[in-house]
Amino acid sequence: MINPLPSSRDKLLFTPGPLTTSLSVKQAMLHDAGSWHFEFNAMVSRIREQLLAVAGLSSAHGWEAILLQGSGTYGVEAVFQTCVPTNGKVAVLTNGAYGNRIVQMLALARIDHLVLHAPENLPTDASALQALLETDKAITHVAVVHCETTTGIINPIQEIGAVVRAHNKSYVVDAMSSFGAVPIDFQAVGIDYLISSANKCLEGVPGFCFVICRRDALLACEGYARSLSLDLLGQLKGFRANGQFRFTPPTHSLLAFNQALNELEAEGGVTARGERYRRNHEALLTGMAEAGFSPYLPPQVQSYLITAFEYLKREGFSFDRLYRQLSERGFIIYPGKLTQVDTFRIGTIGRIFPEDLKQLTHAISELVNQ
Amino acid sequence: MINPLPSSRDKLLFTPGPLTTSLSVKQAMLHDAGSWHFEFNAMVSRIREQLLAVAGLSSAHGWEAILLQGSGTYGVEAVFQTCVPTNGKVAVLTNGAYGNRIVQMLALARIDHLVLHAPENLPTDASALQALLETDKAITHVAVVHCETTTGIINPIQEIGAVVRAHNKSYVVDAMSSFGAVPIDFQAVGIDYLISSANKCLEGVPGFCFVICRRDALLACEGYARSLSLDLLGQLKGFRANGQFRFTPPTHSLLAFNQALNELEAEGGVTARGERYRRNHEALLTGMAEAGFSPYLPPQVQSYLITAFEYLKREGFSFDRLYRQLSERGFIIYPGKLTQVDTFRIGTIGRIFPEDLKQLTHAISELVNQ
Repeated sequence: MINPLPSSRDKLLFTPGPLTTSLSVKQAMLHDAGSWHFEFNAMVSRIREQLLAVAGLSSAHGWEAILLQGSGTYGVEAVFQTCVPTNGKVAVLTNGAYGNRIVQMLALARIDHLVLHAPENLPTDASALQALLETDKAITHVAVVHCETTTGIINPIQEIGAVVRAHNKSYVVDAMSSFGAVPIDFQAVGIDYLISSANKCLEGVPGFCFVICRRDALLACEGYARSLSLDLLGQLKGFRANGQFRFTPPTHSLLAFNQALNELEAEGGVTARGERYRRNHEALLTGMAEAGFSPYLPPQVQSYLITAFEYLKREGFSFDRLYRQLSERGFIIYPGKLTQVDTFRIGTIGRIFPEDLKQLTHAISELVNQ
Repeated sequence: MINPLPSSRDKLLFTPGPLTTSLSVKQAMLHDAGSWHFEFNAMVSRIREQLLAVAGLSSAHGWEAILLQGSGTYGVEAVFQTCVPTNGKVAVLTNGAYGNRIVQMLALARIDHLVLHAPENLPTDASALQALLETDKAITHVAVVHCETTTGIINPIQEIGAVVRAHNKSYVVDAMSSFGAVPIDFQAVGIDYLISSANKCLEGVPGFCFVICRRDALLACEGYARSLSLDLLGQLKGFRANGQFRFTPPTHSLLAFNQALNELEAEGGVTARGERYRRNHEALLTGMAEAGFSPYLPPQVQSYLITAFEYLKREGFSFDRLYRQLSERGFIIYPGKLTQVDTFRIGTIGRIFPEDLKQLTHAISELVNQ
């Protein structure tokens, strides 16, 4: 059944990123830019301000968007390596692999911390945090993942933020796979540091991540940095001194991102993009139900960004075979990451549309029910 | 004199990287690849082996090429953050900004170290290291920059390596702007860790760097890592476990790099590429002499990769004006980084040819002597 002539189309990525981007975003990379050159620096400066605008913020009101070379994880780690003082202590709320990754990076950096685990199918718990902050006065920072990509669950960052603010702690939100498609009200949530990445809902290509934070809060972290590469304050000082990255930036990824931000605006911003992803998600759920699959999470906590499905409880079902057969048809899905239940995941973000989800789920249905 | 219609050509980059790459390298980025997908992983695996081949090494003989997201500086820092034990001590030989950067990253990581400074116009000194290693027995690692991009000077890594080996220390060589165009004999030099980057002499685009090292030496560093993102051993274990990056890789930069390595082979490998850069350098020296400029370094220590020139000692000479005028003509040069002498720099690496250097130096001559 495989076409003997290979398709010249790229396979569609139903993954949490890197994801399918528009051709025009990729074409923006057909140029070489000098990373010291004033034209390039002017573009970087515009990108930083546009990112703040996407967040509903501005540099004039004391906010900064700091771009950092590397994957999203680098950005999350940079916040802790730069902003937690020697005697600081971080409370981490986790219900999946990305929350656990924060615990891992704190342990390696020898930063004192404490973990509040929630089950993978339940949101992290603001009341548990409330109890913790009342007993452990050493805690200085609270960290949580907004959309935990392990399951696609949305954690209640505003409810948690209210507890964090009531206790006057610093609040770190990993919004890797939500920023740009799920509206986030920085003031209402009380975010001090938000981290996201170029290659998620903003539909750029990978190469760098960014941290959005209050300028004053970061400037107060002088002397804490434990790493040169991950020194977020050093990076901010570099941008403020001469508009440049301290070290070689991924110039082509930045050219692509500049185009991606323009296309976000053309689509109608965060609300319109979220709406498209929501329609993608609905098409996915409908098609997967027809194919016989159930989502792992209950709908009230499920994001429209990425969805985990349980394996079919049927003899002969093989995820590996399904994955390869879909790949042959031009669809790439994503394996699961859960510890207790066998799942696989399907992303609904990137330059994909409801029609793509229909085609994907038709193929899945045909392959597992043939 | 400026053309009223903007040129559709990119400006040529006479910089130490990011640099001008071939159109075919950039066109390789017109695709989206899944970072978990087996086809992408197979390419990453080929790239790792090809990098070893460029170094005259192979995985079968116990070597590893470990790709790491971020700029070259991340790779240098990853070596120290991962491989120096708590009670370790690093001797740094420096004669420029990139050697000094190593000192900076050690200080921030609270890694004990000691610095041997040489003047910016002289190579780092193996005999000073010899004397140091005889008196300070706490030193475990020695670090040096091969081609110090500050000036373009080539440091005697083989002579230094002999001293390092005689004292049985670990040897870290930052070969950022030399690897791929200056032949390096790993065995003769006695290198334990060599760091370079995608966007230098290998003519890829920025987004990641790589470390070439002995597998056994790195595997012996279990438990030293001070950072998750910069944990080189963790990164190696990830590749060995399932062929994947631990965290999102710059997929498009890797597609470009795959093509860049093929083009290196097509050009005739390291020797042929070095030969082209040498001819670029000769064309540069000839043209700049005609324009009235003298190189900062004596020829016997000057690399053919990047060259620092002293400002004209003539009233009215302005580097900023020259820079902008050259930019208008489609040429981007590089400012200086020296502490004592006013210089600017011109790179001779990337997809550029002697004819490009002739055009550049003609333009410089015309602009400063008109």
